[in-house]
Amino acid sequence: MSPAAKRALVLSSGGVDSTTCLGLAVEKLGAENVASVSFFYGQRHDRELRAADAVAKHYGVRHYTLDLAGIMQYSDSAMLANSSQQVPHGTYAKQIDENGRPNTYVPFRNGLMLSAAGALAMSLFPDEACDIYLGAHADDAAGDAYPDCSPAFTQAMDEALSVGTYGNVHLVAPFVNCTKAQVVERGLSLDVPYELTWSCYEGGEAPCGTCATCLDRIAAFRANGTEDPVPYAE
Amino acid sequence: MSPAAKRALVLSSGGVDSTTCLGLAVEKLGAENVASVSFFYGQRHDRELRAADAVAKHYGVRHYTLDLAGIMQYSDSAMLANSSQQVPHGTYAKQIDENGRPNTYVPFRNGLMLSAAGALAMSLFPDEACDIYLGAHADDAAGDAYPDCSPAFTQAMDEALSVGTYGNVHLVAPFVNCTKAQVVERGLSLDVPYELTWSCYEGGEAPCGTCATCLDRIAAFRANGTEDPVPYAE
Repeated sequence: MSPAAKRALVLSSGGVDSTTCLGLAVEKLGAENVASVSFFYGQRHDRELRAADAVAKHYGVRHYTLDLAGIMQYSDSAMLANSSQQVPHGTYAKQIDENGRPNTYVPFRNGLMLSAAGALAMSLFPDEACDIYLGAHADDAAGDAYPDCSPAFTQAMDEALSVGTYGNVHLVAPFVNCTKAQVVERGLSLDVPYELTWSCYEGGEAPCGTCATCLDRIAAFRANGTEDPVPYAE
Repeated sequence: MSPAAKRALVLSSGGVDSTTCLGLAVEKLGAENVASVSFFYGQRHDRELRAADAVAKHYGVRHYTLDLAGIMQYSDSAMLANSSQQVPHGTYAKQIDENGRPNTYVPFRNGLMLSAAGALAMSLFPDEACDIYLGAHADDAAGDAYPDCSPAFTQAMDEALSVGTYGNVHLVAPFVNCTKAQVVERGLSLDVPYELTWSCYEGGEAPCGTCATCLDRIAAFRANGTEDPVPYAE
């Protein structure tokens, strides 16, 4: 992290973790110095992009959307609309294949999104220090299921971003050692508008309440003695 | 570098350095285990992409082209077609601005291309080790003009790629400590088809012979006691 950075660019998926990052960045730097960026990479639905837009409007920050779908066209990740695989329902542990990987892993997604954000930050603010915020947390990295959420990964990407941008851009991953419950705890203290967020792997009008990511966020709110404010289908 | 990798994906710009990398990878692994990837990022002309395609055909390797132009749409780099800046002519030293940067720096370009290549490698070969080859060399990194060609950068990206792909993907930058003249020396020994390559910042039917990158390659061939085989306009 660059202590001098007065700009922030927050990777925003419209979900709980990245929206909490956005709340943190706005609290620290003010909305006028913060922008958010979302990515279309061929996912099954645009519901999360609409949520990211609603969250950006709530905070009054500029919101960019970049298209990475062409790069992911050769992947068969279950997260992608053109995949031969199904989105799994149930907890993460049930989804691990014989190689120890969930079929919802998207090839080097966080690396690609962070690199695109680095290019965007250096385009928007070529002469200013800018911190890129990533909402990765320890539950996602657990068991190496999503290695691109781990401290080893965020440290390496911070180094690459910094060196490759003349020291301008740094990566901030405030929750990389936190559980999702701790992320929600921080966000509740910041009045993060969780009612506007979307996490569900499926599209539809209401989140399913049964896919792995729905189950995770429901549990994270309950661990804080409160209920997830989004209305579930089940 | 993963000693066990039987696959290689070579970043190919159609120029001298990346084509030499392709020659190295084919020699080591055989054409059937090598693919090349080129990127459109909004550059002024597609001449280099056509050269990359010609080089891939020469070696008999699969060639992918990915589009990053949407990500670079906010940049004003002189390398881009929509830039307000001119491509400089003369040596690199003349192009450095007050911040020590050339106006031909494209924001985090190598980081973005390597991340896209990492995503592609994990899509094409999800269960196989794959080395990504990058033709960065010491002359490009000199004076920190292009920091995303430096050993510090390639080391950090190798770490990020490895961690973020369950250890499958590694970065190989065989020339990161070599001069361009040494790259050409190696390539001449491998019979690299330099007559098919394109380096010029400008488009046109023949390379200009006066832009920084034309001057660099002309000098690299002369340092090896030979002439650059491409026909220059001047």
